Amino acid sequence: MPAEQRIAVVGATGAVGPVAIALLQDRGYENVRAFASSRSAGKRVGGIVVEEARPETFANGDIDYCLFSIGTPVSRELVPHAVAGGAICIDKSSAFRLTDGVPLVVPEVNGDRALEHDGIVANPNCSTIPLACALRPLHDAVGLRRVRVATYQSASGAGTDSMARLRAQSTEETDVSTDWEFDGEEFDEEAKLRDEMRKILELPALPVSATCFRVPVMIGHTESVWIETDEPLMPDQARSLLASAPGIRLEDVPTSGKAAGTDDVLVGRIRPDRSAEGGLTFVLSCDNLRKGAALNAIQIMELLHAHRPVAA
Amino acid sequence: MPAEQRIAVVGATGAVGPVAIALLQDRGYENVRAFASSRSAGKRVGGIVVEEARPETFANGDIDYCLFSIGTPVSRELVPHAVAGGAICIDKSSAFRLTDGVPLVVPEVNGDRALEHDGIVANPNCSTIPLACALRPLHDAVGLRRVRVATYQSASGAGTDSMARLRAQSTEETDVSTDWEFDGEEFDEEAKLRDEMRKILELPALPVSATCFRVPVMIGHTESVWIETDEPLMPDQARSLLASAPGIRLEDVPTSGKAAGTDDVLVGRIRPDRSAEGGLTFVLSCDNLRKGAALNAIQIMELLHAHRPVAA
Repeated sequence: MPAEQRIAVVGATGAVGPVAIALLQDRGYENVRAFASSRSAGKRVGGIVVEEARPETFANGDIDYCLFSIGTPVSRELVPHAVAGGAICIDKSSAFRLTDGVPLVVPEVNGDRALEHDGIVANPNCSTIPLACALRPLHDAVGLRRVRVATYQSASGAGTDSMARLRAQSTEETDVSTDWEFDGEEFDEEAKLRDEMRKILELPALPVSATCFRVPVMIGHTESVWIETDEPLMPDQARSLLASAPGIRLEDVPTSGKAAGTDDVLVGRIRPDRSAEGGLTFVLSCDNLRKGAALNAIQIMELLHAHRPVAA
Repeated sequence: MPAEQRIAVVGATGAVGPVAIALLQDRGYENVRAFASSRSAGKRVGGIVVEEARPETFANGDIDYCLFSIGTPVSRELVPHAVAGGAICIDKSSAFRLTDGVPLVVPEVNGDRALEHDGIVANPNCSTIPLACALRPLHDAVGLRRVRVATYQSASGAGTDSMARLRAQSTEETDVSTDWEFDGEEFDEEAKLRDEMRKILELPALPVSATCFRVPVMIGHTESVWIETDEPLMPDQARSLLASAPGIRLEDVPTSGKAAGTDDVLVGRIRPDRSAEGGLTFVLSCDNLRKGAALNAIQIMELLHAHRPVAA
């Protein structure tokens, strides 16, 4: 009876919110409310009239799960109100991801951690989630020593404004770009990938070197990955480990377009990194709005709901 | 008196040919002829009427330098005729790049080798040239041990048909892609990058692991690069070496668009690869039609001309 849960999607008119609502409806959830800023209140998303998200919204205790896909400052303001109102918040912003005591969860990777929440579970960055899905089974088998990753991230990862800008461009004008905050050495997106991966895999010193680029693609993030492992990892072994890993589908040549609209993380081009003994390189692609965002949040919610305390 | 040289651009109607003709005209060359297949004969490029390229074209001994930017099979057929006719051929195809005795040249990197030619100098692949420009000064200073590179290559690198296909796409449809030959483990583009780099840098065992993607950008290749070196290389030292290296311009965040239309290889985002002791990572962008192709060919020609044997 999944329809029992009272679910709020906050940020319903952004890039992720409508995908979350569509996925919830596909899964048969009926008690779904949609929230956004006052500017978007009154619009409809998936047939649901959008309400304004305000601190008082969450005071009534009538929401079980709150899926936030809204900017970090708004999450920082509203999530505590939703928690105080009794909702379990699954937050997509970076507000709480690295906060001690807030689980940062990819269900296939560290789902158990979600159960330790104190009202908030953080949903990792859209480039972190698929990479964590691919690294986990490899690490469990042979131990991860280093990770290098170059990303090809789609416009939708940066939200609806970025999608509109790309939509307004002709392919004569497109470019690779970097729309993240720069600290002089790296973009915050690159720091997120490293810091979140360390937290999720519980490898606080894992060396992760990331170079992130936005590419002129609407939906789907692709990543080129090099890993070194404690024990040698042959491509066939990696293929076999990944083929049986949850949430992963092997694909000869993953691309963003192949991943768009699907739930799986596509992994392929698995081959030796001939530049390092026992090194391996591969490519992954993932729908950043689904598994990279909305789907991962819903999976966290379903995991929590399946393990919810039963009233005495 | 550069106008003396009799130059033929073969493949004048492709992606590279018109750029070669424009650059030659900018540089004051007046004796430039344009050649292409019979299908394109009669068209005009840069005001020059295109002639059909046939084996007999080159028999008269009236061409000093022949810049080939045409498919590998056609180069394989026509270049020997041009050499027999007395022209020095600078060939952009992969027909002769790895042939013993054929210099594979980036003037800033191994210009001296061009002088050892026997009628043919090969022009490296468009993703190899800018990387060789960046790696050479670093290798000379501290010794290269390994190279990993993820490419973001533009449509123009694949020729005019690929550009037309991208032009016909809306940004709703674009994707990252791979349009190279696949041997089951890697694309030939990736093998080229490794094999050509080894030949150019004269490091026959240099470990180079490349993952190549085409991105929906019209002109300009970008590359994310990780290197390990024999001696530690600090970012400041790398910046200083690259700042004084020929053909390179430092740029905070290189992108394909910033490089398009310029002659320099843009290098930036130079920072420690914190995943490896003494490792370094950086990004480069280059106009693949200019320094990645036509400009490099013209520079080879000018280098040969400056060192031409003087008649007794």
